[in-house]
Amino acid sequence: MPTPSPASPPPPRGPLDGILVIDLSRVLAGPFCSLLLARLGARVIKVEMPGTGDDARAYGPFREGRSLYFESVNHGKESIALDLKKPADRETFEGLLAIADVLVENFRPGTMDRLGYGADSLRSRFPRLVYGEVSGFGATGPYRERAAYDIIAQALGGIIGLTGHEGQPSVRVGVSIGDMVAGLYLTVGILGALYRRDRAGTGTGEGTAVDVALLDCQVALLEADMTAYLSTGRVPGKRGSAHPSIAPFQIFRAKDGEICIAAGNDGLFRGLVKALGKESLADEPRFAKNVARHEHLAALVAEMESLLADRGVREWLSILDAAGIPCAPIQSVADVAAHPQVLARNMIQSIPTRDGGVSHVVGNPIKYADFPDLPPPGAAPDLDADRSAILALLAAGRAGRP
Amino acid sequence: MPTPSPASPPPPRGPLDGILVIDLSRVLAGPFCSLLLARLGARVIKVEMPGTGDDARAYGPFREGRSLYFESVNHGKESIALDLKKPADRETFEGLLAIADVLVENFRPGTMDRLGYGADSLRSRFPRLVYGEVSGFGATGPYRERAAYDIIAQALGGIIGLTGHEGQPSVRVGVSIGDMVAGLYLTVGILGALYRRDRAGTGTGEGTAVDVALLDCQVALLEADMTAYLSTGRVPGKRGSAHPSIAPFQIFRAKDGEICIAAGNDGLFRGLVKALGKESLADEPRFAKNVARHEHLAALVAEMESLLADRGVREWLSILDAAGIPCAPIQSVADVAAHPQVLARNMIQSIPTRDGGVSHVVGNPIKYADFPDLPPPGAAPDLDADRSAILALLAAGRAGRP
Repeated sequence: MPTPSPASPPPPRGPLDGILVIDLSRVLAGPFCSLLLARLGARVIKVEMPGTGDDARAYGPFREGRSLYFESVNHGKESIALDLKKPADRETFEGLLAIADVLVENFRPGTMDRLGYGADSLRSRFPRLVYGEVSGFGATGPYRERAAYDIIAQALGGIIGLTGHEGQPSVRVGVSIGDMVAGLYLTVGILGALYRRDRAGTGTGEGTAVDVALLDCQVALLEADMTAYLSTGRVPGKRGSAHPSIAPFQIFRAKDGEICIAAGNDGLFRGLVKALGKESLADEPRFAKNVARHEHLAALVAEMESLLADRGVREWLSILDAAGIPCAPIQSVADVAAHPQVLARNMIQSIPTRDGGVSHVVGNPIKYADFPDLPPPGAAPDLDADRSAILALLAAGRAGRP
Repeated sequence: MPTPSPASPPPPRGPLDGILVIDLSRVLAGPFCSLLLARLGARVIKVEMPGTGDDARAYGPFREGRSLYFESVNHGKESIALDLKKPADRETFEGLLAIADVLVENFRPGTMDRLGYGADSLRSRFPRLVYGEVSGFGATGPYRERAAYDIIAQALGGIIGLTGHEGQPSVRVGVSIGDMVAGLYLTVGILGALYRRDRAGTGTGEGTAVDVALLDCQVALLEADMTAYLSTGRVPGKRGSAHPSIAPFQIFRAKDGEICIAAGNDGLFRGLVKALGKESLADEPRFAKNVARHEHLAALVAEMESLLADRGVREWLSILDAAGIPCAPIQSVADVAAHPQVLARNMIQSIPTRDGGVSHVVGNPIKYADFPDLPPPGAAPDLDADRSAILALLAAGRAGRP
């Protein structure tokens, strides 16, 4: 037994302090979920295939041989390499499940069953375990065994059909929202299951399975578009930069570039056209109310762009900001990294790499009054880097949950 | 006292059964969060401004005078109209807070303080309350008092700069992911806070404040792009339909339209080019490995489109599906609504409207093994529609938490 430390235990890092997550997931949807669990204070152990590990380790760009893609969603986690087809490694894996609170996986449905680790089977052996799975199409339905990636979910889920300019080649949303939104929903589902398991007084003490599909999550994002289509039969097309219900709420051409302006109600519209130098527009019946403005959108854009043509983007931003009108430039990733509000919110964070360098990751957008806003400690692990610590945890767990 | 029912109580609707949410939020980010809480079993009471209520009640399209936009994110909630500047209404509101678990609001930071309901003030009076706020820029930092809407967060957060074709006018992502992703993060934050409050054994019994900003959430979606930029200094531009690290993973032109194909690893690429009729491509050094394919993307697209030009989209989909290659058509909202997997997953749900009709909403992508996959009961409420039931709840609450 180690000598008990004289210092008091460290304060909790977040609301999930003490929660152990075993993470079999690869690439993005599952790892994005377990990253968020880590940021909420959970300990996350990646169980990876020996040899190659998480596929994302091979995704560029690289720095000193390490994938920056992998770094961005796996910092603050630990790694152990286990071959789930080998008896000794299966025993280690099952030992981890016995002390874990949550399992995250994003294999194609059926894979875990073939390994003997399907949700029903694990439930009978590890009744406290919350089993979180995310897949392209979900664990049920005729498409359940098909593979999907982010862009497939974006295309099937309708978002690509709503994004871009009519008549132009289709575009993918520039970030992997198919994966990341699914990772967010899975996180919500896992937290709900933990709450139901552990709630004082009414908690059941039992885990459950949570099944999240990339496609379903894309459909969930259609909200008003789907309700409106099913009621009216009108099929929306690509929208350019315009909003389906609000005007003006889009990107306009100014003298030297683009500017984004959103006047979400009639009062803001009056303030906007006053700042643009033509307040009389707010008195015209075709522009006085949001519904009318939306009906006369082409005319509205023409009026606004003729006014906006007089000055550059920076000048308009300062005029509109002073008038309290929501507006923005189109920022690059470099602009985002230097933005004063982004920096003030601690959304760019530094973490020490294992070789003594520094890496940078985006921060956690969940800011709690009672917990520090720190990244989970440590850069992304090399494959199997934490084997000895994890085996020690397992040994301690066998002797009684640490 | 009513006679006790001989029937057993209804089974829990979800993991948040018994949780009471008071929702001051309007339009989308906050209501999207409270909708998800309702779908997890919570009771959600919208507290709205008398007269107009939630701004989204005025957003089209409409059916029989009711906003379908409002319907899509407010079904299954209750409504009471309260003017938080009037003493009697303030008393009612504070009575609700005394029995509530969660408060959700999306005013501009400062508004709740001016009403006397800032997070610190509520904390001292209602220590169990979880205070969830979502705003454009967050409750701290130099931009905290500015208003923002979805498109402002998309523009400042960098996603618009990554979406679309270089040299074309910028496009907004076709759905309001600025708001919805923030609503998802707020849901995660609230669930974390409830878990920490109520966890058997270690729960503190205390709520906390959760502060989520639209802008921060957009930055969080940059993950690998931000890590890569800060390490390499290379600023990514608009990507068309291509993925920043994986190839082929984009939209291609076939004989009669567009097809989305994602071969996320070298094995899938070989299967793909075999199905396209030119397996030798997988042996070429420029195409054999993902990193090489990504470097020679233009050549790869040219090769693939020359093969794809021979057949139409439907024909290719069936060939590629048979070969196990992830592929998809670009679906419209109408296609989504009719897709067999979407229907099998119960992602289009019917709810009875208050006038005896039927409305349609998107389902919940979180599928629990232990809870039914039902929409929360009831269409979106008319303004103040549930006043008497809510006042009765309050009276019962005063006599002891129901």
